[in-house]
Amino acid sequence: MPSPPPDPARLAVATDGRLTGATGRYTKRLGDMDGVYRDRTAYAEQLAARGADAVVYTVQEQRDVEDDGALIVGTSTLLPGRYGDEFAVTRGHLHARPNRAELYYCLSGTGVMLVDTVDGRTKALPLSPGEAVHVPGHWVHRSVNTGTEPFVTMFCYPADSGQNYALIEAAEGMASLVVDDGAGGWTTRPNPDHRGYDGGSPC
Amino acid sequence: MPSPPPDPARLAVATDGRLTGATGRYTKRLGDMDGVYRDRTAYAEQLAARGADAVVYTVQEQRDVEDDGALIVGTSTLLPGRYGDEFAVTRGHLHARPNRAELYYCLSGTGVMLVDTVDGRTKALPLSPGEAVHVPGHWVHRSVNTGTEPFVTMFCYPADSGQNYALIEAAEGMASLVVDDGAGGWTTRPNPDHRGYDGGSPC
Repeated sequence: MPSPPPDPARLAVATDGRLTGATGRYTKRLGDMDGVYRDRTAYAEQLAARGADAVVYTVQEQRDVEDDGALIVGTSTLLPGRYGDEFAVTRGHLHARPNRAELYYCLSGTGVMLVDTVDGRTKALPLSPGEAVHVPGHWVHRSVNTGTEPFVTMFCYPADSGQNYALIEAAEGMASLVVDDGAGGWTTRPNPDHRGYDGGSPC
Repeated sequence: MPSPPPDPARLAVATDGRLTGATGRYTKRLGDMDGVYRDRTAYAEQLAARGADAVVYTVQEQRDVEDDGALIVGTSTLLPGRYGDEFAVTRGHLHARPNRAELYYCLSGTGVMLVDTVDGRTKALPLSPGEAVHVPGHWVHRSVNTGTEPFVTMFCYPADSGQNYALIEAAEGMASLVVDDGAGGWTTRPNPDHRGYDGGSPC
């Protein structure tokens, strides 16, 4: 035992995403989402109407050490929204250490975990309260809110994972879009802007 | 990416511990708990009355690869019980790679996460539905059911953690006992049999 290990943390995980015991949080605002949605006009209209400071999602987390073997636990609260026919999303990422996995457990709302491998596999996994998605390493992943209420998940992943956000931006978006199916639900369609990931040989 | 990563797994996590999408499970029976409780007579009486095959807890889990960075997700369902004034417990363990952390999130019932460091710190952290305990590496840990219903938790930990069960046995139990407080609740008291952990220099 190299140094005294930190105390275990007690957390209260509210279904609305409030995390009592959190050590950190960040908020993404509408102005941070430039370039994320395919329908640039729809995004620009919302930016004009709602303002750049409108909250779009919040992440609360608890972490201790960053040692190999340590975990980060937290909640993600993604507000509902639509940009053209695209549902509201988080920016999404591949872990900087790409083999790091992540668990997402749905606390409230309804959504989708959109996942891609850098070599062309793409999937959309629905999540409702009491359901979880275990995302293995090497999958780019993003939350999508397909409902009308906040989509809240609890997550757990290795503390040394890191996040590579630039990969999706360089690819001009993920391989699939999660869109309105015109019948009150959602479906996916290929993202015509997606140019493939420049990540066939991750570090 | 050394080999194609496994598909993400969708899991349905019932509050009674049923895990749809599990890849494995095991059940501990009363006969497996020999030596775990301090009151040997109380344990022997229950063994005679209920039989060695009586289920005491069940673990269901989902895992994919065992690579560095991979996770195991699952549920633990610990039935209520009393052995003398001691509440029902799981065997408990330190991870074989002792620096591996673990998240426990309570799905139903009420209980305690009992935790010790090998150098003498000991704590008992209560858990009710919607609460979680993040156990850092280097903490021996065990679930305790302090209620009258099954105590069900969802867990998440690194896939390469392993379990060292022998450590607690060699120490003649954990440092504290979780016992009836005589007023409808629980309290802890030092375990007089505990001889300290032979683990000051874990591998």
